[in-house]
Parts: sequence; C-alpha cells; structure tokens
Amino acid sequence: MNFASDNHYGAAPEILRALAAIGTGTEPAYGDDAITRRVGDRLSTIFEREVFVYPVINGTTANSLGLATLTPPHGAIFCHAEAHIAVDECGAPEFFTHGAKLATLDGEDGKLTPAALQQGLRRFHKGSVHHSQPAALSLTQSTELGTVYAPDELEALGALAHEHGMKVHMDGARFANALVGLGCSPAEMTWKSGVDVLSFGATKNGALAAEAVVFFNKDDVRDFEFRRKKSGHLLSKMRFVSAQLDAYLADDLWLANARRANELAQRLAQGLAQVADIRIAHPVSANAVFASMPQATADRLRKAGAKFYDWGVPSDGRVLARLMLSFATPEADVAKLIEAAD
Amino acid sequence: MNFASDNHYGAAPEILRALAAIGTGTEPAYGDDAITRRVGDRLSTIFEREVFVYPVINGTTANSLGLATLTPPHGAIFCHAEAHIAVDECGAPEFFTHGAKLATLDGEDGKLTPAALQQGLRRFHKGSVHHSQPAALSLTQSTELGTVYAPDELEALGALAHEHGMKVHMDGARFANALVGLGCSPAEMTWKSGVDVLSFGATKNGALAAEAVVFFNKDDVRDFEFRRKKSGHLLSKMRFVSAQLDAYLADDLWLANARRANELAQRLAQGLAQVADIRIAHPVSANAVFASMPQATADRLRKAGAKFYDWGVPSDGRVLARLMLSFATPEADVAKLIEAAD
Amino acid sequence: MNFASDNHYGAAPEILRALAAIGTGTEPAYGDDAITRRVGDRLSTIFEREVFVYPVINGTTANSLGLATLTPPHGAIFCHAEAHIAVDECGAPEFFTHGAKLATLDGEDGKLTPAALQQGLRRFHKGSVHHSQPAALSLTQSTELGTVYAPDELEALGALAHEHGMKVHMDGARFANALVGLGCSPAEMTWKSGVDVLSFGATKNGALAAEAVVFFNKDDVRDFEFRRKKSGHLLSKMRFVSAQLDAYLADDLWLANARRANELAQRLAQGLAQVADIRIAHPVSANAVFASMPQATADRLRKAGAKFYDWGVPSDGRVLARLMLSFATPEADVAKLIEAAD
Amino acid sequence: MNFASDNHYGAAPEILRALAAIGTGTEPAYGDDAITRRVGDRLSTIFEREVFVYPVINGTTANSLGLATLTPPHGAIFCHAEAHIAVDECGAPEFFTHGAKLATLDGEDGKLTPAALQQGLRRFHKGSVHHSQPAALSLTQSTELGTVYAPDELEALGALAHEHGMKVHMDGARFANALVGLGCSPAEMTWKSGVDVLSFGATKNGALAAEAVVFFNKDDVRDFEFRRKKSGHLLSKMRFVSAQLDAYLADDLWLANARRANELAQRLAQGLAQVADIRIAHPVSANAVFASMPQATADRLRKAGAKFYDWGVPSDGRVLARLMLSFATPEADVAKLIEAAD
Repeated sequence: MNFASDNHYGAAPEILRALAAIGTGTEPAYGDDAITRRVGDRLSTIFEREVFVYPVINGTTANSLGLATLTPPHGAIFCHAEAHIAVDECGAPEFFTHGAKLATLDGEDGKLTPAALQQGLRRFHKGSVHHSQPAALSLTQSTELGTVYAPDELEALGALAHEHGMKVHMDGARFANALVGLGCSPAEMTWKSGVDVLSFGATKNGALAAEAVVFFNKDDVRDFEFRRKKSGHLLSKMRFVSAQLDAYLADDLWLANARRANELAQRLAQGLAQVADIRIAHPVSANAVFASMPQATADRLRKAGAKFYDWGVPSDGRVLARLMLSFATPEADVAKLIEAAD
Repeated sequence: MNFASDNHYGAAPEILRALAAIGTGTEPAYGDDAITRRVGDRLSTIFEREVFVYPVINGTTANSLGLATLTPPHGAIFCHAEAHIAVDECGAPEFFTHGAKLATLDGEDGKLTPAALQQGLRRFHKGSVHHSQPAALSLTQSTELGTVYAPDELEALGALAHEHGMKVHMDGARFANALVGLGCSPAEMTWKSGVDVLSFGATKNGALAAEAVVFFNKDDVRDFEFRRKKSGHLLSKMRFVSAQLDAYLADDLWLANARRANELAQRLAQGLAQVADIRIAHPVSANAVFASMPQATADRLRKAGAKFYDWGVPSDGRVLARLMLSFATPEADVAKLIEAAD
Repeated sequence: MNFASDNHYGAAPEILRALAAIGTGTEPAYGDDAITRRVGDRLSTIFEREVFVYPVINGTTANSLGLATLTPPHGAIFCHAEAHIAVDECGAPEFFTHGAKLATLDGEDGKLTPAALQQGLRRFHKGSVHHSQPAALSLTQSTELGTVYAPDELEALGALAHEHGMKVHMDGARFANALVGLGCSPAEMTWKSGVDVLSFGATKNGALAAEAVVFFNKDDVRDFEFRRKKSGHLLSKMRFVSAQLDAYLADDLWLANARRANELAQRLAQGLAQVADIRIAHPVSANAVFASMPQATADRLRKAGAKFYDWGVPSDGRVLARLMLSFATPEADVAKLIEAAD
Repeated sequence: MNFASDNHYGAAPEILRALAAIGTGTEPAYGDDAITRRVGDRLSTIFEREVFVYPVINGTTANSLGLATLTPPHGAIFCHAEAHIAVDECGAPEFFTHGAKLATLDGEDGKLTPAALQQGLRRFHKGSVHHSQPAALSLTQSTELGTVYAPDELEALGALAHEHGMKVHMDGARFANALVGLGCSPAEMTWKSGVDVLSFGATKNGALAAEAVVFFNKDDVRDFEFRRKKSGHLLSKMRFVSAQLDAYLADDLWLANARRANELAQRLAQGLAQVADIRIAHPVSANAVFASMPQATADRLRKAGAKFYDWGVPSDGRVLARLMLSFATPEADVAKLIEAAD
C-alpha cells in the first residue's frame, strides 16, 4: 500500500514500449529528431496554438529553466510559501537564475490570491536598484495540497502579474490531474488565463523521467536553449525523453492515467471521511488526499503496511497524512486502507 | 532638516583628516600595510580577544561576504522579513552565496525570537538534499526599526542557532548606536552572545565608505580573502579605507558619534510623543524614531522642509514616518521638527 | 553510413530490456533503491575497491558536477585546449563551479604532458588571492582525438597534480573504449594512476542517457549530493537510469560493445590508410579515426551517403574527417566507406 | 625606490583636498548628487559625446561589471593571455558574468591582432548551443606590458569584433598613460575606434580608489545599475568616489599626472638602455619599463633599495624586471636606479 508519492511507481507499459521501439538506429542528436518534433506538434494541437516545447528530465529542471529564462538575477519570483520551488528543490531556482529571490506568500489550501500578491509586491519597488524586481509569478497546478486553481482564479492572478510587468509560470508537475479535476481545456488552464511558461509534467503520471517546458510565446524563449545546455540538461539521445512524452500524449494516455488516479483519490477521500475522527483537510481536486487523523490511526495504518508521509508537524495528538494516488496504484489498496483506518 | 537617512550626511572631520595625512607616499598594496594592521589590533582590543578583520566599502558587501563565507550555495540563511539583507540589497546575499536561500521570519519590533526561528527550521530538514540546509542566522543590531536585542536575547538565539549547526551573523551597520543604546561591552554584544561574524559599520556613523568584516574565530575565515578579491572588493590602496576605520576607532570617536545621534533620537521621540495624535511606534533604542502620525502632519513636516521616508504603506489616513538621526544632524533641526509637528 | 557521432545511435537491446523489466512497481525514489545500490556494488568490484557512485544523465553533467565538487569558485581547472569541457559544453563547468576558471593547455594528439601542466601552473600562484588557485586537472580518456593515455602517462600527470594540491578528474565519456584499447585494468587506468573522480560514460556505448560520477575516496564526495539536487540532476525514478548502468555492466556488455567499436575503427583506419592521398592523422587507440583527405574525397564520401564531421578548418584543399565508430555501426558500412574513398 | 607598482603610491593632493571639502553636509545618497552628475558632464565633454558614467572603486570591478553587462553567462570574452582580467582578478569576470568563458589569445608585446582573434573565433560556433557564444573583446590600453594600441589597430580589432556581433571593452586602468603616450584624443582612442564600454582608471594615476565605467551608447547600459547594486558596488556616500574623479579631471590633473609618469619611464628606459647587458624588452609607450637584465644586476638593484617585480620566470640567468613609474615617483629615484644598474 504505497501512498507515499506518485513518483514511487514505475512507468506505464505504453511508455516503456515506446522506448523499446526506438532500438539502435541512428537519428541526429540533441533533439533534432522526428520524435521530438512530433511532441511539439502534439502539444501545439492540445493547446490550440503553436507552442515551443523543450523536453527535460524532471520537474525541478523544468521549473528552474523556465523561471530562469524569464527572471534576471536581480529579479524576484513570487510563489506560495509551500511551493515545491520554495521548499523542495534545494534552492535550484536560485542557482539557475544566478541568485534571484523567491518571495514567498501565504494562502489557504496551498493557493495564492491576488490580495496576497498585491501585499507581497509592496516590498519590491519597481525601478529601485535596492529591491529585487518583480519578474515572475509561479503557480502550482494542482497545488502541493491537492487543490486546484479554477480558470477565473488563474486569470485574476495572471492579469495582476502582467499588470506589474511579471511573467506567469505554472508548475504543472501534476498538470493532467488538475486538468481532469477541473474539466476545462488545456488552453483555458494556461495561456487563456495568462500563463506564459508551463512545466508540463509526465513523470508522476506514467513516464520514467520526462517533462516538457512549454512556452506559449516565441519571444519568451529567449536564451533558453543555451541555459539548458549550460546546465547539463540537453541530452544527446533526446529522442528517448521525447518518446516518453510522445507515448504519454498518444491516445490520451495522459488523461486516462490522471483520471484513474483522481478517481481513486475521490474514493479514498469519501471512504476516509466516513471514519470517525478522520477529517479531510483540503478539497480533493486532483490525486492527493490530506487526512487529519489521530496519531494512533496513522500508526495503525502504517502497521497494516501503508506508506505515506506526515505533512508538517503533529500537534494535539493528530497528524496530517498526505496520501498520494498514482496511475498505477492498485485499486485494492484503496479499499484496504479505508478498512484499516476504520 | 534631513531625517531621511544617516547615510545622507558626509564624513566626520577626524576621518577626513586621516585620509589627508596619508599623502602620496608608498606602502605595500592590497592591505599589507601598517594602517590596516592597526585597525585589526584596535578591534582585537575592543573585542577583548584576537579578531580577524577585513575592511570593505559598505554594509551590503560586509553582509554578503560574511554570509557567503559561512553559507554554501545549498544553505539557508534565516533573517527577519524586514532585514536589510532580505529587502534592501537587491539579492546581493543570493549573488555572493551563489544562490543560497534567504528564509524570512516575522517578529515584533523588527526582532526575531527563538520561537520564530524554531518554526522556520521545521521547513528545512537537516541532511535532506531536497531542502536548503540551515547554515546561518542573521541578526540586525540595531534593527531596521531602531530597536535592539539585549545580550540575553542574542544569547538565546545564538545558542539555538549553534545547536542546529548554524553560524550567527550580525549586521552591525549601526553597531555603535546599538552598543551605546544598550550600555554593554562589544564582547557581550557579539562573541559572548554567540555571534560568529560581524558586519561592523562605520559609514552611517561618520566614515566615507568603510565597514569591517570581523570574524571571531580564525577557522571561520575559510576562503574569505578569495571571495573578497573575486567580487572586486579588495582595494589596491586599502589603507585609505583602513584609515577611516582607524580614525573612527581612535579616541572613541565611534562611540561619541553614536552617543550624539542616539541622544538626539531620544530628544526627538520625547518631543514628538507630546504631540497630540503622534505615537512612537517602536522602542527608541538607537538612532531611529518611528512615529505614527496623521497624513496631514507628515505633509506639514515636509512642507516645513523635513526630509524623511514613510515606512510601509499609509493606512487609515496615517503614515509611519521613519526619522533617522546622524552624528552630524544639527541639534536645532530636532527642535524645529518637534515644533513643526505640533 | 553514420560516422558522425557515437551518440547518433540508439540504445543496446539489453539495456532497453532492463527498462521494460522495471514495469510499474513501487520503489523508494531518488536513488534509494536496490538497482542503484547494485550499480555501486558492480563498480566497486570492477575498480577493486569501494567506490562512491552517482548516476546522472549525460557526460556534461558528470564532468561539471564532479569538477564542481572538487573546485571552489576561485579555483582553476587545467585541461587540454580541445577538451570537451573547454569547448563543447557551453561553459557548463563554469556554471556548476560558480565561475571557476578553465586554464587550457596545448598538447599533441589531444594529450597533455607534465611539461605543459608545469608551464600552465606558472601563471597561477598558490596562495595569492589575485590568481585562481590550481584545483583540478581534467584528462579525457580516450581523448577527443581518439588517442589514449597509457597508465604511466596518467601516473606522471596525476603525481604532478597531487604534488600541487590538485585533484585529478577523468572525463571517461569513452572510458570503455580507452580501456579496451589499452588492455589494462579499470583500477590501473584510474585510482592506481591518481584519478580522484571519474565521469564513467555509458551513453555513447549503448545506454539511452546514463553516466556515473565515480569518486574513489569518500572524502572527495563532499557536498556532491546537494549539488546534484540543486542543479536538477537528481531523478525521482532514479532506478530507470541505474538500470541502464546495471545492464551495461552485467555480462561485460560494456566491454563487448567497446571492443566491437574499436575493432571497426581499426579496420576502417587500415582500409583508409591504403587509399592514396589519405593519411591517418592520430594514433587510432579507441573508436575514432581522424583521416586527412582531399576535399574532393570528402565530398565523394558524403555523396555516397556517409555522415561525418570535419575537424577544424580545411586548409590546402584538405579536410580532417572525424569518423566515429559505435557499438551499433553496421559492419557493412565500414567496408562501404573504404570502397567509396578509394 | 619603489618601482613595484603604480598602486603603491598614495593619492594626489588635489584629490585629497576635494574629499576634505565635502565635509559633513547632506546630499542624496547612492549617486543622486551634484558631484556625480558633474563627473558625467566632464567625461561627456572629454569624449565629445554624451557618455553614461558609473563610478566604482577599482579596476577589477569596472572590468567585471562592464563585461558582465555585455556578456551573457553563455558568452565568451576574448582577451590576451596576459590580460589582467585573465590572470590577475581571481576569476572576477567569471563571477560577475555568472560563468562566461574567458577565451585567451596570444600576441606579441601584450597586444592582440585581428588574425589572433579570427583564429580564436573558429572554436566558438555562432548559434551552436554547445559553444560559448562570442560576446565581447577586451583590450587593455595601455597593455600589461606597457605598450599601446594605435587608433588604427583598435579600429581593425573593433571592426572585426562588431562584424561578429561582439561588443568591445577597453580595460583603461592606465587610460591616461596610453592617451598621453599616443597623443590622440580620448574619442579617437575609444568610440571612434569601436570601443563600447571603457574602464576609465584613476586609482593608479592619483586617486584613492576610483574608476569609472563609461558606456558610449545608452542601450549598452542595460541592467548595469542592478548589477552594481547586487555586487555591493553601489556606495551610499557615492560623492566621495565621484569627488576623486571630479578633481582628477579638473584642470587636466589626469593628463599632467600621466605625462609625468610617462616622461620618467622614457628617462628610465633611455638610461637603462645605455647599460651593458640590459635590454629594453618592449616598446615603452606609457609608464612601464620592462628591462631584461642579468640576475646579478637585478640583485644589485634590490640591494640598493629598489622595489620591482620579476615578470615571468627567470631563464638563462636573466630576469625580466617590470619597472612601474607613477605620478608620484620621486625624480631622483630614476637617476638613482640607472646609476645602481650601471
């Protein structure tokens, strides 16, 4: 019963087959190949406009490279205080941006509001050399707490960011889960709401190690390709990363996988909500369930073989359990966990 | 009536005379000269132990170089959310540390507490590569709000920092003002309370452009000298910076200058406190007075020729005026301001 | 007929099968898995001592992370003027080291000599803050020109580097080809000759995207793991990189693949050497053949379908063709190229 | 008898008086003052066009900030192998540029030629992400060997650099000495010959610690001001640096000081050239004399009290003595040295 992380599961069979299909044959190196081009075409279709796509190996890299392309060393990046870029990447964005500042903001359910951003902007005076200059707003979709921004929420934040001359980055490590959760179109959830660059995740939803940095405007690409090379993230046999994305997008595998994980999350949340003394702490909109429970319950679940992380620090004898659902979580595990909790 | 900043004033005559006395004669370059050595000796005497002293040109540099020497790129520096290093240095610490993270904490009157630090430490798990590693605690003395940490407060914070394997940095841009305000010894306010490296300010209190990075333990100096050179902060004619510090420390000029500024601050605070509808917002322990007043009062003061900055954003028709006193503020200006306010 | 690069070929079937075998099952993330451990064990056996192994995705990353771990920002890295790290990585080593200096040296056949290193060391005075401090020597084995350092050559260079307090890095993007070419043991070619850290290549010899940073002494690992994370090179599903290395090392696949490529290189070189007006420019010790030929011959080869790069700038109507052989180059292509050249 | 460096001498009396004249009065901080503006006006007059002037404290900083403004992290800076930026700044340009590459070129008498630059450019393919991109050419005027580029030599280099999309930087630590040596106009020696940004030196020629970064085109200033702040090089009491430049430029003090040093250099060179077994190694065009002499002669000079550095490594029993002349070198010292050599 592994609910610890969606990155503990292996890779989807469709994706593994796509790698095997490449074999030993020759292709130009460094992304100048047909599979990489096809991934770009697929995403342009999906996003209903020409997009500029660069495959990379993981989310930290996608986030850091995308942000660094849009943020000068003297820039500030606004994000939620619990954002992955702020607390789980060992300062990678600071490294890739050559020392830009992450300005963290608070917000309920892992989400930022225009009011919080407005407040944060007050500390960084535009044009003053003493202050890091507001350069980017980073939003996580779905959030670290399994919640999602609705398109109109994204739009309000995007408009405010643009008004202040900032670019908007979306950390879409769980993009598919958010999309399925919302039921809107990829375009609505991104450029139509003001997103300028997207970290399009695949690893947590079935790939081995593949994400795509997606720019919606060619001008924003700037010196991205040099940054990718200089940071060691340009692969010679790029088609082996691209092939993962290709299979991920083909036949809507990405949506099917996300739908499955989200449905299991709903089922798990509904089951746990029936248990006395367990409380679902945040809206379940994607593939994460945050369940507040007595320490004794958590202990019992672990004894029954369940793996999961506590979120934050236990208090008053209760823990907040983070339960992640994956495209590959066995259905039976969900029922077993609910049963063990009761 | 200039209360805008203590860095708007020129330099103390004693210090200017010391520069003139150097003349055209030869000395070895890059700090290998008698005056630079004398500054080291003076500070060793003042701090009652051998200290390791490196003159630099300003506070941003002293802070950044001191912190970078003690903080790896994957490190985190804890500081107050209003600290100069966090909001007024355009991300210089991030640049000098090659991308370390500034983890900001809140606290009343511009001061941190052990509880706040403890809370902040929870987000950065020691030994986990995902999290920036707690490396330094930076305290401003006197603080950005003109308050001071008492030695026992410093000691509690220092002990907690050391317990977590962190080093303690003190931003002493207004070190003399804090010292005079507290009436303790330089040793008590620093290494006896756990401070490992000090930015010893002189510019705001009478020098042209001179501060000293003071290490209390030789081991902490590490590769500081390479960092200073590589960042352009090693001067060939170093003795012209050292001479400022030398004159600053000779005959207790530094204490006399700070005492004068602090006394003027007390006088100003007491005067303004008598004025209806003016409220002194923070304890006045050094050379800054924060006075909450109606917008109309602030306007009237400015019309009368007073220069000062608003702190934060006006609300409810009131502004928080920051009034800085300098070693060179004319006494008459204090009386004039009080009168104009009334 | 693809002789352009050994990175144009796909992946070995044994390695693709190893990925497929992983499937969707769960394992702890970030390298804390059984396959990653097994790779470490295999390399410890191969190198006849305990080694410290970190899988990464490509050679630029292996080189940059290994060098950055051993070189401070104020350090200098000595390398050949044609080294991959000097001319083909867009300054990645400078980025990862936060601005260390690459001091390039000349040398016949792509190889450095102790005399050249000695000469280079004269510009960087140990202990002087004005000069970047000698920190690492980087050697490429096999070299960019398809030649190899014999163990006694490595030993002489290693001893000189250590004498000056420097660490020795080996860029082993084509480690297996060099080893097979020399017929010595992996230990002799590395730590017994003074190598401290090795970029152990697999991608060019059959993997999709896998290399290993191998430290021979635990103390040298320092903060490597933080650097890998901070630069985006720690993969969540690490076992998919490790599995490539695991299959690469199992049953001596790495040696068999390299042997095949080297033998084809010998055959090609011998064939071309028979052709009037073609001259083999450098000893053929691994899987590269550098053939000087008239421009007309090069044109004819390309017309016949051969892909390869010119090395340097044509002069006197002649070009220097670089012909790379791979584990997967069809045997028939070698014969065809020789025939087309004649 | 100090011929070790022009930076061993103190400061010109005119400049020290200018500092004293500032006193304790108030002025806006951070360069928003009348003296700083006047320096800009003076240099615009001197250069016969509007220039954009930023005072800094030394040459390493002027070079690094100017170059970093024009060179992206993935850029390459071409310079002479003996250039100060390449060997005497501990990698400061690499730090300020966030890891750009210094591509060093050889050349007689410390000077580069278009042919050498052309050769160097061959290794860095424009547009290829694998290669650092040619971004700047840095020329030292006068050179590290006391020679100068004539305006037509500068023009040829500048034209070639611009043709390849590069910017031209001039390290003018001894700008006045070169100018006086050549007898041309400041405009001819800079923008009329293609120079885009100049490190205008004053420290070695009479200031305490003052240089100016001079941009000839407003567009090239880009984010310079943020870079200066972020690296700790924006001084609060900037007018104390500007006042040095102001007095340096007033009444042609800069030219008078340089003329004096250059004349002493001529006298010294002529005197030493008469001595048997002493050979002047490079044309004496500014304030440096490089004299090849037997080790015994060098020993005798030092015994007589002369201070100077050997250049490079002694060979065949001879040393190359670098003898620097300053605005403040006592005339008598020149005669004494010649006498002691004979």
